Amino acid sequence: MQTLEVKLGDRSYPIHIGKGLLEQADLVLPHLKRKQVAIVSNTTVAPLYMPTLVKALETAGVNVIQIILPDGEAYKNTETLNLIYDALLKHRCERSTTLIALGGGVIGDLTGYAAATYLRGVPFIQIPTTLLSQVDSSVGGKTGINHPLGKNMIGAFYQPKVVLADINTLQTLPPREYSAGVAEVIKYGLIRDADFFDWLERNMPQLMALDEQVVSYAIYRSCQNKAEVVAIDEHESGERALLNLGHTFGHAIENAMGYGVWLHGEAVAAGTMLAADLSQRLAWLSEQEIARISAIFQSANLPLTPPKLSPEKYLALMQLDKKVADGQIRLVLQQGIGKAVMTADYDKALLNQTLEAIAA
Amino acid sequence: MQTLEVKLGDRSYPIHIGKGLLEQADLVLPHLKRKQVAIVSNTTVAPLYMPTLVKALETAGVNVIQIILPDGEAYKNTETLNLIYDALLKHRCERSTTLIALGGGVIGDLTGYAAATYLRGVPFIQIPTTLLSQVDSSVGGKTGINHPLGKNMIGAFYQPKVVLADINTLQTLPPREYSAGVAEVIKYGLIRDADFFDWLERNMPQLMALDEQVVSYAIYRSCQNKAEVVAIDEHESGERALLNLGHTFGHAIENAMGYGVWLHGEAVAAGTMLAADLSQRLAWLSEQEIARISAIFQSANLPLTPPKLSPEKYLALMQLDKKVADGQIRLVLQQGIGKAVMTADYDKALLNQTLEAIAA
Repeated sequence: MQTLEVKLGDRSYPIHIGKGLLEQADLVLPHLKRKQVAIVSNTTVAPLYMPTLVKALETAGVNVIQIILPDGEAYKNTETLNLIYDALLKHRCERSTTLIALGGGVIGDLTGYAAATYLRGVPFIQIPTTLLSQVDSSVGGKTGINHPLGKNMIGAFYQPKVVLADINTLQTLPPREYSAGVAEVIKYGLIRDADFFDWLERNMPQLMALDEQVVSYAIYRSCQNKAEVVAIDEHESGERALLNLGHTFGHAIENAMGYGVWLHGEAVAAGTMLAADLSQRLAWLSEQEIARISAIFQSANLPLTPPKLSPEKYLALMQLDKKVADGQIRLVLQQGIGKAVMTADYDKALLNQTLEAIAA
Repeated sequence: MQTLEVKLGDRSYPIHIGKGLLEQADLVLPHLKRKQVAIVSNTTVAPLYMPTLVKALETAGVNVIQIILPDGEAYKNTETLNLIYDALLKHRCERSTTLIALGGGVIGDLTGYAAATYLRGVPFIQIPTTLLSQVDSSVGGKTGINHPLGKNMIGAFYQPKVVLADINTLQTLPPREYSAGVAEVIKYGLIRDADFFDWLERNMPQLMALDEQVVSYAIYRSCQNKAEVVAIDEHESGERALLNLGHTFGHAIENAMGYGVWLHGEAVAAGTMLAADLSQRLAWLSEQEIARISAIFQSANLPLTPPKLSPEKYLALMQLDKKVADGQIRLVLQQGIGKAVMTADYDKALLNQTLEAIAA
């Protein structure tokens, strides 16, 4: 097992990465205020991993409430959030009850937001079961839900007490979702860690084959990159925005197609290709670099081509992005592999060319 | 104008108290990230004070969005919260848009919670227009909404950038609501400020007659007391709980009768009498002190007698209180005027006597 510390002052917390962590109640116990937890999971993950976790905790004398939600991004909304509140209130859960998220990003975001807001805040533990949530949403405390008018529009910054990334859970992850997680791993290389990008190019076959050591290292290094960024900028006023490479385009894709049709990581991969295309038009990326980026996404079985929507549609959806300031769409763009910048100071005509090329 | 600083590190903020503050845009301007605000008010307050505020801000070059909600505690719920989100999204409000709450406690709590959660947090200014909200909810950053199973069950701690308490707005406050506010003013004297309690006994006629100087001083000293408590204990782990004198009983009353039937301050007054009754049974309060407490509530036209519900009903509703720990109802009780304690260590039989005396 490897352990990484996310350094955020009195909100610091450890991330444990390894095999079989679900069975180790001693990783959870030191973080409980009292021996009562409510585990939130979904109908897909619960049958696979809930019994193991519940058994470990109950054996350690913990009182466990189970809250099982429908599965899917489409349920990351107010109604599902209310199911969590209702269950907590029905069981008279107090401020000393710890919420545990057992599942992917949707479960983590919903549970974290419920923890941030139930009784104005109760403790929260993350057990991410997808690669995407292990390398992304488990670090940084972003929680929230979608709104019919936009993704993650409602939420809070709220840090967990501990994160357990059990790589055993990746065995049951559908290949498409695994690839979507790899998209975010690649992102860390692209925005700030050229060495990691090189390492990923060399180790992609082993990563795709779920080689234990390679997977562990990829998660560790991804979390390390994210933790460094978040430590500098917890509330996303500056550098943290770089983590949104491909996301302004990506959110537009997810929103246009209906949440859940494209996986988040798939939308980010296609969105990153659009950001790369614009970066190339700005002469910030070479043709060779573009080729490397598309090759690595391809080797992870990720889509390179975004859905054919009109430039106007893309622009309208991109206007909903949280990084929009004074009406300007700020984009994360590449200045070479391993270096990203956020800027609203790009030629809008070139952005139109990028968007028009999609429709062509 | 008097100004008080609530000291909370980098979340510190000033409270301005005086006449005609609504017209002074210069009190608002230094706190805006950019010249765009969304003012949230209700159908009762907006016709009275929205035009003055909007005119002052627009004259100063601020772009103003108005969000007008139905009036009443019954609307402090998810549905009304969504009306705020919908309006903000429809107007494409960004993280730099400041939300302004213009109204009483319900508007403050709803708007503050919307600000805490919209795009994971936007700036927030409070302009409380009732005595209760000026002396209570404007200090301390408690925001939130009710749930069918309990009051303020969903929420966040989120501090405003500035508070304007314009005492002109009290001229139009219905007398019953004004009295409800006085209940919370008296509370500060009871829990921690015996001198203030004495002053209130002497000045109650002027306070009830809206004498400008007396009202200003009462608001200032109330906010000062609350600010001191909150500075020590922002997240309500200890001393802050003392502010809930009368609230565990009071919330049970409000919940049982249906939110909005009893005003919050009325329920707190009757609840404080119950806490005093139990304190007397514990021999912590004398008969004379009980007489002073009931006399001061009476002189403020506040109800002393709680609704006749069974002890079982009271206990069940009190179990929902956020201060319940390990299933024990922790109560704020009096050890003399000017000294409150929170404790679960009281004779439960005496609590039953207090509750049985209601039904008798």
